This record gives sequence, C-alpha cells and structure tokens, in this order.
Amino acid sequence: MKVIIENTIDEMSMTAMQHLLGYMYRHKRVNLSITGGTTPGRMYEMLVPMVKGKDCFSNVHYYNFDEIPYRAENREGVTISGLRSAFFTPADIAEDNIHVLNQYNYTSQDERIAADGGLDMILLGVGADGHYCGNLPGTTHFGDKTVKVACDDRIKNRLAEEFEGVTEHIPDYYITMGPRSIMDAGSLVMIASGTKKAGIVKQLVDGIVDEAVPATLLTLHPRFTLIVDKDAASLL
Amino acid sequence: MKVIIENTIDEMSMTAMQHLLGYMYRHKRVNLSITGGTTPGRMYEMLVPMVKGKDCFSNVHYYNFDEIPYRAENREGVTISGLRSAFFTPADIAEDNIHVLNQYNYTSQDERIAADGGLDMILLGVGADGHYCGNLPGTTHFGDKTVKVACDDRIKNRLAEEFEGVTEHIPDYYITMGPRSIMDAGSLVMIASGTKKAGIVKQLVDGIVDEAVPATLLTLHPRFTLIVDKDAASLL
Amino acid sequence: MKVIIENTIDEMSMTAMQHLLGYMYRHKRVNLSITGGTTPGRMYEMLVPMVKGKDCFSNVHYYNFDEIPYRAENREGVTISGLRSAFFTPADIAEDNIHVLNQYNYTSQDERIAADGGLDMILLGVGADGHYCGNLPGTTHFGDKTVKVACDDRIKNRLAEEFEGVTEHIPDYYITMGPRSIMDAGSLVMIASGTKKAGIVKQLVDGIVDEAVPATLLTLHPRFTLIVDKDAASLL
Amino acid sequence: MKVIIENTIDEMSMTAMQHLLGYMYRHKRVNLSITGGTTPGRMYEMLVPMVKGKDCFSNVHYYNFDEIPYRAENREGVTISGLRSAFFTPADIAEDNIHVLNQYNYTSQDERIAADGGLDMILLGVGADGHYCGNLPGTTHFGDKTVKVACDDRIKNRLAEEFEGVTEHIPDYYITMGPRSIMDAGSLVMIASGTKKAGIVKQLVDGIVDEAVPATLLTLHPRFTLIVDKDAASLL
Repeated sequence: MKVIIENTIDEMSMTAMQHLLGYMYRHKRVNLSITGGTTPGRMYEMLVPMVKGKDCFSNVHYYNFDEIPYRAENREGVTISGLRSAFFTPADIAEDNIHVLNQYNYTSQDERIAADGGLDMILLGVGADGHYCGNLPGTTHFGDKTVKVACDDRIKNRLAEEFEGVTEHIPDYYITMGPRSIMDAGSLVMIASGTKKAGIVKQLVDGIVDEAVPATLLTLHPRFTLIVDKDAASLL
Repeated sequence: MKVIIENTIDEMSMTAMQHLLGYMYRHKRVNLSITGGTTPGRMYEMLVPMVKGKDCFSNVHYYNFDEIPYRAENREGVTISGLRSAFFTPADIAEDNIHVLNQYNYTSQDERIAADGGLDMILLGVGADGHYCGNLPGTTHFGDKTVKVACDDRIKNRLAEEFEGVTEHIPDYYITMGPRSIMDAGSLVMIASGTKKAGIVKQLVDGIVDEAVPATLLTLHPRFTLIVDKDAASLL
Repeated sequence: MKVIIENTIDEMSMTAMQHLLGYMYRHKRVNLSITGGTTPGRMYEMLVPMVKGKDCFSNVHYYNFDEIPYRAENREGVTISGLRSAFFTPADIAEDNIHVLNQYNYTSQDERIAADGGLDMILLGVGADGHYCGNLPGTTHFGDKTVKVACDDRIKNRLAEEFEGVTEHIPDYYITMGPRSIMDAGSLVMIASGTKKAGIVKQLVDGIVDEAVPATLLTLHPRFTLIVDKDAASLL
Repeated sequence: MKVIIENTIDEMSMTAMQHLLGYMYRHKRVNLSITGGTTPGRMYEMLVPMVKGKDCFSNVHYYNFDEIPYRAENREGVTISGLRSAFFTPADIAEDNIHVLNQYNYTSQDERIAADGGLDMILLGVGADGHYCGNLPGTTHFGDKTVKVACDDRIKNRLAEEFEGVTEHIPDYYITMGPRSIMDAGSLVMIASGTKKAGIVKQLVDGIVDEAVPATLLTLHPRFTLIVDKDAASLL
C-alpha cells in the first residue's frame, strides 16, 4: 500500500491524473477501468484537454466496473451515462474503445476482460462506509466475481440520489465487479477527498481487513495506491 | 487464479520447478521466497542439478518467509535448516544470496525486502487446515505484516513434529510473514499433493475467502497459481 | 544479454522449453512467436506432451514471424507447415490460437500484433551467417518492419533446401518480420547448437553490432537470452 | 516507437514530467537516469514542487548516464553539477538516492546498475547531430557499454561551451554509458524541442538506423517514446 497525501483536492486530482496518464502512455494496448461520481470530477476536467484529439491514446480501452440500470431499460445506465458526460464525450473517446457493462453482458465480463489481456489499472473512489464500485457493505463477499446484486429497500433508498429522487427509475438490481474481479487488475488506485472520508481513510491505512468495510481488502493488492487530500487524511 | 492439475506428484513437481525457473531465468536481480517441508521435496531433487554451478542464476536471491527458532538459540531455525539441506547446500547457492529471517531481524523484514526491490515470486505449500507459512488458523489476521506469533499449547503440540518430538527444542514463539506481506509479492505459486489436501484444494477453488482458512485469501492475488496432483484435485 | 551454456542439445532444448513455459504459464493472454527449423526439433518433442490437452494453456496465442510461400499459392507456406507438423498439430493447439503470416496479410502484421497486446516473447534460431527469421544478410535493414523480400538467385539457391530441391516450388519472394518488428517484442530467446554455429555465437557474445550479421542487433534488446550447447559455445 | 507531439515546450515539458512521474509513483524501488542540459529545464521547474518533501518518492534512485569531468579533478563534473542545480538540490533528493558516475567508478557502472535491479527508465535529450548522452557520432559503437571516450580537438571544441569557454577546464576524456547500456533499460523517453531539432526528429521517425546518427538505434527499443514540440516536429 502506497499512501500519497496532497494539500488540496486540486492537487489530489492532478496526482490521480498523473497516475492514470502513467498507464495511458504505455506502448501496447492498455485496458483501464475508471470511476464516475463526484470525487474524480476535477480530475476529468484536467484530463479532457490532455487527451482530446491525441493519437497517442488510441490504444487505451475503457471497461465499466459497475452499472445501475434504469428500471425502464430503454436507456443506458447511471454509471456509463456519468462517464460519458464527464470524460468519454468531451474527450472524444472512440466508441470502439468503450466497453460497457450491463445487465445483458455481465456474466461474461470477467471472461471478456481476460481475453482482452486483463485490466492494467482500476481507478476507484471509496464511500464513507467503505464501499467501492457496487460493493456496498453486506452485498458482496471477498470471493465474488462480477455479480448482479438485488436491491433491498436500504439500497433503493441509497440509490434514490443517483436518480435525483425519481423513484420510478430505481431498479430492482444493479451490476458490479466483485472483490475478486477488482483484485485481478494489475494495479489499483483509490482516491478520496474531504473530511467525511477521513474515517474510512484511517481504516484503510490502519490496515485491518474486514468484509464489513469492503475497501479494506484492496489494501492487500500488491500495487494499491491511495491518493487523498489533507481533509481526507485528517485522522491519520 | 490459475489452477493446474497434473497426474502425479512427479509431474506436479516438474511443473512447479518450471514456474520457479521462469522467474530464475530473468535478466535482472530476482528475489524469491521458497517453501521447505515435504511437498516440494521432489521438486528440489529435480532443481538441484539444473541450478548447481550455473552462472546464469547468480542474480537470484532467496528470502525466508517464516522461521521456527530452536528454544536454545545457538543454532539456525527449522525453516532455514530445512531449505539448506533440501536446496541451498546441494545447489551451492552463495551465502550472499540467502537472506535469512529470524527473531533478531523480523521487524525489518518487510522494509528490507522493499529496499531490495520486492519479492518477484513466492512458492508456498498449504496445510490441510488452510495454513501457509506460519499463518495457522487463529494466529494472524489478513491485515498482518511480518510478525512474531506466541505459541500456545495447541501450536506447541503441532510443532513437536518439526522437532522430532524433542520437546525442549520447541520455542515459545515463531516468526512468519503475514498475509499482507505475502500478498505484496509479484506472484504466488502454491503446490499441493495427496488426498489429504483434497479438501483444502476444493475450498481454494470454490473461492470463498475466510480468515479461518488462511490460504483462501491468496486466491485473490492477481497472479496466484495453484499446482496440484490428481489426488489433491480429487474433490474438484 | 544473458548467455546460458548447456552440455548437450537435449539440455539446451529443455532449458529453451523452460523459458517458453515461463511465458506460457502466465495468467493473462500470452502472445508468442516461435521458430521452426531443425534446431528446436528436440524441444518440441519434449513440449508436446506437456502442452497437449492442458486447459491452462488456452490463453497462449502463436504468431508466425516469417513465411516462405510455395510458388503455386494453393497451399500453406513452408514455415507454418513446419510448425504445424512439429508442434501445433501434435499438441492440439486450437486453430483460433494460431495467427498465420502470409503474402496476403503481411502489411497488417505489425498492426494486428499491437492490437492484440504485442508479442510477449519470440523464440528464434540463428544461422551460421547471422540470419534470423527471414532477415538474411543483405535483405533487410535494422529499421525495417514486416516486409516482403524479393528472392534473387542467391536466395533461391538457399531456399532450394526448404523445398527439397523441387525448384518449381521456389517463390519469387518471401515474408519476414524485420529487425524493428522483432525488437518490439517483450523478450527474445535465441537458441543455437552444434559446432557450425560456434562462429556466430562468438560474434553475438563479443558484442559488435553489424548489419551484415543481422542477429548481432538482437543482443541489444533489454531482455535477450542466448541458449547454446557446448559445441555452439566452443569458441567462447 | 511512440511519438507524442505537443504544441509548446511547456506542454512537452509537462508530458515528459508525466512520463517520469508514471515511473516515480511505482511501489517498489525505482531506478531512473535523467538528462541534464537545456531541453529539460522547464520540466524540472514543474517537477521540483511536485517532488520536494514528498515521502512517496523515497524509493526513487537516480543514476548518472554520463559525466564530463573538470580537468582539475577536485570538483564534481559538469553533468552531476547540472543535475544538482536543476533538480536534486531544489527537490531535496537524499544523497543516498543519487548514484554518481565518474572517472573512478565507470568500469563498474553496468554491474552496479544490474545489481540494483536495472534502470526502469532513462530520460534523454538528443542533439541535432543525433548524439545522446556522450554518444557523439564517431565516438561509440552500437555494441559499447559504459566507456571512457578520449577527447580529440573536435570534441574539445564542442565541450568548450559546457565549460563556458574556460579551456583549462576541458578534460582529455569523458565518460558515457554506451548504446548497449542505454538499450538495457526498461524504457526510454526522449525529448526534443525547437526547429533546430526538426531534422534529427524526422530521421528518428523515418526509422533508418545508422551508427553515424547514434540516436536512431534507440528507436528500436521495445519501449521508446519520443516527445517533441511542434517546432521539433515541423518536418514530419
């Protein structure tokens, strides 16, 4: 586990982007899985102008690591939609380089990734409760691969926010790469910012591994890097 | 997780040796940690004539991953003694390339390995109870690095065999790299043979990760290979 | 450059096979290019029983690095035919894992390999004149990628042997990955046996790089291993 | 060969820095060799504040790839002095992480680097004449390792600039890692800016490899990246 503490969310975003670019500049095909959500927002703002229109990134492929489908299944899910608007669309990433995950193809996700050479790196956020991707406490076990998770009321309540409160959009299940699939990547980079992440960051650095706090497992990956801002590091 | 099933212990030993050689032939410094005990005995018999006197292996370094000291501390411990007689001495490995672990230096083991570039590969056995190195059920937690483990009576009884029943040799503690230190290696290769390992091999392949069965964690390493003979695979 | 000297062609073949297996056992997709001809004959005899019917090698893909087409183009060329009979057919390699190179697809060879993740390793022989693949002295330059080489009379005379003297089979051109394409692989392993290779082996080890002796360039690859028997090493 | 064209020297410097950081952020010991001179000046200005005082870079080691000693040998040479003032001193790099090359230790340079695990990356500039490090046209051959080069009058005239015209400082020889030593690194990154580099950049991209233009060899390295600004790319 490598821990990098930056002063501000801007510096954290820049350092995260530099990690990402370190993989993107490789010569051969590069397979990445990158997080949506709010934490990486500033990073994508910095990254877009560096990537847009550059031939040297044509060998970089992107794989979704989770998906929350809309109940009415006639539109793309929340995760891919967020990634498109934050990065893929403004950076003009070719559709051929975007590998979506959804309720129709999730059972072959691990196999498809292996056939394509495996993921070189996954960039993840972490929740205050220790969740990452769709691995919320109590939903997946350390040994799980890519799975469909049934949404109970507790989860549906949490998902309400993703659907801006439009409850008829909230689905009965979502898809996520499980702990085993995530651990199979070449490298893991996790980002966290803000004081409400200070508790989970302390737990990760303390190093107790506990299935009730899913992200603690990832600290055992041989190339796990945690990049945080000062607020998220305030309990260290 | 990659699982390789061989017909006999001889073929399993050859395949394990080929994995080992795949690392040993690398161009730059190679850091390995290899298991003692009975399972790899045949493998070392095959390996010794291939390694002895060969200049091309002078860049290979060996690090112990555990040690059971003699109570009277004026002699080397059980693990290093076993490795010397099975491999280091008959293969003429230079003393400079052997990095012992003991009660005097264990607190700096993880740091020394990192400064030397990390372990490229660890070759491990597994017990019927799921233990590996000195990570017996109930002794270490998934998050532990290299530690000193106090021996209670249960453990002392188990150790009696290592000391051929000479109970005054049995120590009050032993040393082991913990799960976190083991997971930090570049690759893990685990070997198992015989029907008494069939149960644990099934558990490993089934993929449920449980601290009560320590080796189940290692299946989450991005480069974990399990090599077994037909008897050990009989429950798959 | 790493040089490994073995006593006999059998030991050289075993060591070459172990190098090959070190790559073949990897977890993710592995792309190899392996040599035909007489030098590796014994190696393939050893390798076939180790590979045939083993699921754990289903991620290994094979790419031809050269091809001498028959003049009448209604049959496969000399190189792929040789590899099929020495290894692919007896080892039951799936057709999907065999990527042929020929006069119809050679212009996209480098691009296809890059899209598939690059070659992890190339196993090569070497001629007494320093040629490797179809890079005969005077045919390609160090900077060349995959090319079609026109056959002048000198080359046609040399090729006669490949066609067992049936001169109407000898083509007007052949295909080869050039020095630049070969150097682009992750690792290079070269094998040589017998006293008639002693001169070129000495040149390789001496380390003078000269386009008139094509293989001398390969010694500059960061992971170049030369495996020879005692006869081939007799001038060292 | 990967070619990256940036609009300005500032963007080129940032991209070069990102390549460097991609290696510096690795978990285990990282061995780098980085260029002095004028081309990387802006890059070091950007890099210093990102590195200074950061614990996460304590595993990064720096090895000089050439040295021009002062004739009076009681002071450090031109290369290390330049690197100290541009980067090591302002970034507070620990003396233990700086591995100088000089007239007293050059014969063991290649061996020391190998024992330390090899160079992970070399960042190089290129001269309009195709020289890199001290590999000026006519001084070293493709097969050379680290060597001492005698300075004839032509070279002494060129060196005058390095010594600001103080001719009594100009030495009779200098030290450089040769082409073979440079090619042995894990990755090579070359930077060039300005119209006077446009000719050599065109030669590198055209891909003819010629000992009279030393840097052309480096394009054959399996991980060679060339980063240039628009002016240096103006002939492409």
